[in-house]
Amino acid sequence: MQLRRRQSFVFTSAPSIRSWACAVGKKEGKGPLKNDFDLVLSDDQAGEPSWEKAESALQKMALERALSKGGLTADDLNLICGGDLLNQCIGTSYAMRDMRIPFLGLYGACSTMAESLIVSGMAISGGAVKKAAGITSSHFASAERQYRFPLVYGGQRTPTAQWTATASGCVILEQDGPGPYLRAATVGCITDWGITDANNMGAAMAPAAYQTIRTHLEEFNLTPEDYDLIVTGDLGYLGRSVVQDLFAKDGLNLDDRYDDCGTLLFDAARQDVHAGASGCGCSAAVLCAKLLPMMKEGKLRRLLFCGTGALLSPLTTQQGESVPAICHAVSICTNKEDTWIT
Amino acid sequence: MQLRRRQSFVFTSAPSIRSWACAVGKKEGKGPLKNDFDLVLSDDQAGEPSWEKAESALQKMALERALSKGGLTADDLNLICGGDLLNQCIGTSYAMRDMRIPFLGLYGACSTMAESLIVSGMAISGGAVKKAAGITSSHFASAERQYRFPLVYGGQRTPTAQWTATASGCVILEQDGPGPYLRAATVGCITDWGITDANNMGAAMAPAAYQTIRTHLEEFNLTPEDYDLIVTGDLGYLGRSVVQDLFAKDGLNLDDRYDDCGTLLFDAARQDVHAGASGCGCSAAVLCAKLLPMMKEGKLRRLLFCGTGALLSPLTTQQGESVPAICHAVSICTNKEDTWIT
Repeated sequence: MQLRRRQSFVFTSAPSIRSWACAVGKKEGKGPLKNDFDLVLSDDQAGEPSWEKAESALQKMALERALSKGGLTADDLNLICGGDLLNQCIGTSYAMRDMRIPFLGLYGACSTMAESLIVSGMAISGGAVKKAAGITSSHFASAERQYRFPLVYGGQRTPTAQWTATASGCVILEQDGPGPYLRAATVGCITDWGITDANNMGAAMAPAAYQTIRTHLEEFNLTPEDYDLIVTGDLGYLGRSVVQDLFAKDGLNLDDRYDDCGTLLFDAARQDVHAGASGCGCSAAVLCAKLLPMMKEGKLRRLLFCGTGALLSPLTTQQGESVPAICHAVSICTNKEDTWIT
Repeated sequence: MQLRRRQSFVFTSAPSIRSWACAVGKKEGKGPLKNDFDLVLSDDQAGEPSWEKAESALQKMALERALSKGGLTADDLNLICGGDLLNQCIGTSYAMRDMRIPFLGLYGACSTMAESLIVSGMAISGGAVKKAAGITSSHFASAERQYRFPLVYGGQRTPTAQWTATASGCVILEQDGPGPYLRAATVGCITDWGITDANNMGAAMAPAAYQTIRTHLEEFNLTPEDYDLIVTGDLGYLGRSVVQDLFAKDGLNLDDRYDDCGTLLFDAARQDVHAGASGCGCSAAVLCAKLLPMMKEGKLRRLLFCGTGALLSPLTTQQGESVPAICHAVSICTNKEDTWIT
């Protein structure tokens, strides 16, 4: 790998994405990507006695399906990197408990899918491992009761609220393969513009997304036109418009090269999700169900996948704190010889 | 880097530890390492309005002291990797909020110091960054109220309970330097031998430590005698004896080559800490206050630093679950040309 200025680096020996899979909940399975998921639960409890165990079960399904799609078993992996939104990341720990795969736990809130690609990509590109996976999940019901109210309370949601996706995605990387390839990454700095409304995560995370994308373009001397698609995840409708506004102020029009995973998972008008989707599983599911398949089919050649996370807790909100956010960008391409990033 | 069998790899271009620092609480400052800490709080609240904010303040002190000891500023770092025990790792997120350092959040419970060395070491050794730091913290009061009872409740502690250290440690790595050096690492698998007593973390984590150390020795064809010291952190007195028993059953006597950070931070008899110390800050503080200085002074040439973490949450205990644990081993040496690991 090679450092470019301060926050970015090139994966000189570009890790190849061998396989991927996602498993989602019932509501997600009725959205616009309904035909693209590997597994759709018929019951979001997945036969488990608690929502948290259901989340772990979902994550295990995504891993097992990604392994089988790649013709691999758990023993073939040297590393899995993952995390989730639950306190102490129990969604992931309990999913991985019986897998006997070397495990590095991450906490990046909804940026976890991108973070897991960066860490497993570094391990592969540097030669530390041969095959590694990134994984994450979220579950509407486990997130609601932990971050907000018990579901039975029936609390009213604000217009800026996003709907936590019940979803898990897993991506398996290897040293050599036919791609798509991880080409470069920009690791984000924590950004906090003072938003204290814990029901407006889009506004809290948008400045982090803006800063990381700007830094990525600057450190590699790129323009938005160098990408077929820049996708953030998961700012929702409101956060997406904030990012567009921030770039417009810089005289950069992202046009239809830019979208957000939080606006792609549900049909907001029909599915009553207010400002869009959120949760670690949202960008993971959109990556695995829509974006990577588009790359495989040649419909996308260069993708900047920008995971966004809000690093608050219910306690920091109670203590009157504003919401720190982060965004990590991963540059993915279909042609290893493509030299637009060097 | 080069993979060795399944879980281990060599840092072929060994990252050099440039500087380190630790900041600890009042009680820690009265223990056996009292003369070895960089900073000791006179009041564990650190002038902050909450315990959680005090923990963030402590972590910031450790980072700032490590930077100044290394003759660096925050701008010199390309990456910082860290996490803590608090829900959503807010101890770390809020400490890093204003630092403008590219940040990867980790969750490894009390294994975080070792995990942060592995991830930042991979980034350096692979060439992705030039200077990176690992950081973690824990705080007795923030941990007690989150995991157990409000302090004012005055709950009785069990004999197997450990005392969460109020401490933060930070280690800064660079590509080239005079050492000590990261030589190799073994990433652990989650291990769960069915312990359901959330007040007996030592017993829950000991099997993970045993498995990772065994794997490390096997994958590099080493014996315990190849190390001056193998140190786990933080199993406490009970967990340490379980590790010794497990090795004895294999016919391996660890003798005085083995110790545990949870037994080194406090004087258990005098300081009423029952089974010893715990918390992410425990192994971080012992590494920074005692072990790295011993390496710098030539009193230790080869160290196997094995961070141990219990990946439970209060909710998993309430749901009757057993405690998954993990251990990551980092091999540190003073002589880059030392070829005992190849």
